[in-house]
Amino acid sequence: MSPKSNVLLFGSGGVGTIAALNLEAGGQANVTAVLRSNFAHVQKNGFHIKSCDHGTVTGWKPSKSLYQIHPPLVNSVPDTYGDPTLPAFDFIVCSTKNVPDNPPGLAEQIKPAVTPGHTTIVLLQNGLNIEKPLFAAFPTNPVLSGVSMIGSHEVAHGVIEHDDKDRVLLGPFHNPALDRAVEEAAARKFVDIYSAAGKTDCVFTADVGFSRWRKLVYNSCLNSICAITGLDTGRIRLADGAVDALVRPAMEEIRAAAKAAGYELPPEVVDTMINIDPLTMYLPPSMLNDLRKGNFIEVENILGEPLREGTALGVPMPTLTVLYGICKTIQWRTKEQRGLVQIPPKDNFVKDS
Amino acid sequence: MSPKSNVLLFGSGGVGTIAALNLEAGGQANVTAVLRSNFAHVQKNGFHIKSCDHGTVTGWKPSKSLYQIHPPLVNSVPDTYGDPTLPAFDFIVCSTKNVPDNPPGLAEQIKPAVTPGHTTIVLLQNGLNIEKPLFAAFPTNPVLSGVSMIGSHEVAHGVIEHDDKDRVLLGPFHNPALDRAVEEAAARKFVDIYSAAGKTDCVFTADVGFSRWRKLVYNSCLNSICAITGLDTGRIRLADGAVDALVRPAMEEIRAAAKAAGYELPPEVVDTMINIDPLTMYLPPSMLNDLRKGNFIEVENILGEPLREGTALGVPMPTLTVLYGICKTIQWRTKEQRGLVQIPPKDNFVKDS
Repeated sequence: MSPKSNVLLFGSGGVGTIAALNLEAGGQANVTAVLRSNFAHVQKNGFHIKSCDHGTVTGWKPSKSLYQIHPPLVNSVPDTYGDPTLPAFDFIVCSTKNVPDNPPGLAEQIKPAVTPGHTTIVLLQNGLNIEKPLFAAFPTNPVLSGVSMIGSHEVAHGVIEHDDKDRVLLGPFHNPALDRAVEEAAARKFVDIYSAAGKTDCVFTADVGFSRWRKLVYNSCLNSICAITGLDTGRIRLADGAVDALVRPAMEEIRAAAKAAGYELPPEVVDTMINIDPLTMYLPPSMLNDLRKGNFIEVENILGEPLREGTALGVPMPTLTVLYGICKTIQWRTKEQRGLVQIPPKDNFVKDS
Repeated sequence: MSPKSNVLLFGSGGVGTIAALNLEAGGQANVTAVLRSNFAHVQKNGFHIKSCDHGTVTGWKPSKSLYQIHPPLVNSVPDTYGDPTLPAFDFIVCSTKNVPDNPPGLAEQIKPAVTPGHTTIVLLQNGLNIEKPLFAAFPTNPVLSGVSMIGSHEVAHGVIEHDDKDRVLLGPFHNPALDRAVEEAAARKFVDIYSAAGKTDCVFTADVGFSRWRKLVYNSCLNSICAITGLDTGRIRLADGAVDALVRPAMEEIRAAAKAAGYELPPEVVDTMINIDPLTMYLPPSMLNDLRKGNFIEVENILGEPLREGTALGVPMPTLTVLYGICKTIQWRTKEQRGLVQIPPKDNFVKDS
């Protein structure tokens, strides 16, 4: 039996915590989790997880087998440069929100834990062109694409509700500077350790672009429309005409853009994505959840990039153009609410007499 | 001096209450106001009004000169059919929200107070084709168009903040069944009694269509975009790119639709409307106010009708098509929140183990 892989999890919310639990359940990985907002709570109480794949787990933390060198929970990215006695991470699984319009970027954040020429970076994140900043920052490290269809949310600090099966399509982003065989081996290795528990559908894909564009049919459209209208995916299907007026036209624009980019998604993908969440689950997509929590939304990677790519290829995308304009405006609203932009003071136009 | 006109006000919120105050200040009208949600409060305390045109007025109610026959405040539309001793209303000023997708319609509501062949109906309301149900219901009564640019809001029951001058463009809708001279005389009479206090800019216009399409440049676009994004008109101008990405394209679509309908709005109208509210007033347009209060929005008259009219005339309106789809979906959300539509119960997919 090969030694366990040394995995750093960056982003231990709904998606990342289930990934950590699943990796440890398979017995082929030791996970160190970087926690931020929920660190103090989880350090004290562990995670409380209700999972459709793993059952109910109370007080859970990643294994302590590497405790002496990497504690299983940390509140900042371990500095493997600063301490050469630390073993290198084999994989860094990134499952934070990816909001490039709100720096610092992901590459800058994980940099202390990346060993050049060794660490494989796994982007368990949505959207298009998310590998590009990583290629630029880490030219000697494989970067993998993980497209997850999981439904899992952190409903309170350390409390995870995982209600829709973890399904991951995994494959290498192709960095022209790296050997494809090395990238593919890294991807297959991660599929192995992620599949070891037998609880998830983790499937290798060579065609990362196809799987990303395919998921954008859901993400660019249902995420943004649900966030804007305040409705979950069940209600959006019940609301008078919303599917025909908004969801279908948007999804057809993504299909057209994907086709122009070289990925032929079948027409049925539209109905598949419309119906992929069980209606009576009334599932809020991540972007709606983010808004409800007052967080930034992943507008640039899941809406801006495909829109820019499709538009540059000459595809008319009128629906997504408007949805993007609205989402960017909502992002500004969040910035203003957080005091990140200053506006002139209000005048008192109505005077007391 | 001619006798005072007998006016029924239907809808005593921000716009209507200032209209009533202004009519009575002019001394040529006795106003009876129909109140609904604020009736008990105003009956007891009167209105508290801070007005940029009329100053601060405390404990105000319409005049009591007709008290014996029409009390100045009523909580339902007086039935002038049922009691033939009541004098007829000369004018009924309608300043309720106009939400035809949420019956009963306006015509049905004011019917008991309309004297055929006598009462003039003044629609101090936004949107397109709002006269059509009134023409159908009251074929012998003039119907007037009042396009108001007032900024006035009921911030609590009976508390009115009027912070942007009352300016009204008034003229007759042309009912093919009526004599144009009669319609015009009714309009000029109303302009006279509304101007008598010398506090407002109430101007007669023969070209009602032009004034309505012109105001739609503001209403169809800023109302809907502000409501959807949750930003007032000041913030929408400050938000990164929102004006160029959303507001201008939408306004140009209204200009194009107006042109196809025969109304040539000058290009400058776009910047005029973008800048018409003082930025640092941070004014929420009515539709945003309605949403914040959990009320229905006037989506059909101010967005649906111009979109249908422009589209029927062959004008491409991609921006407004998406905004309309979103606003209709938000309207459904309000219906669902009020229990007016039933949805299947939620399943509990995450089982406790």
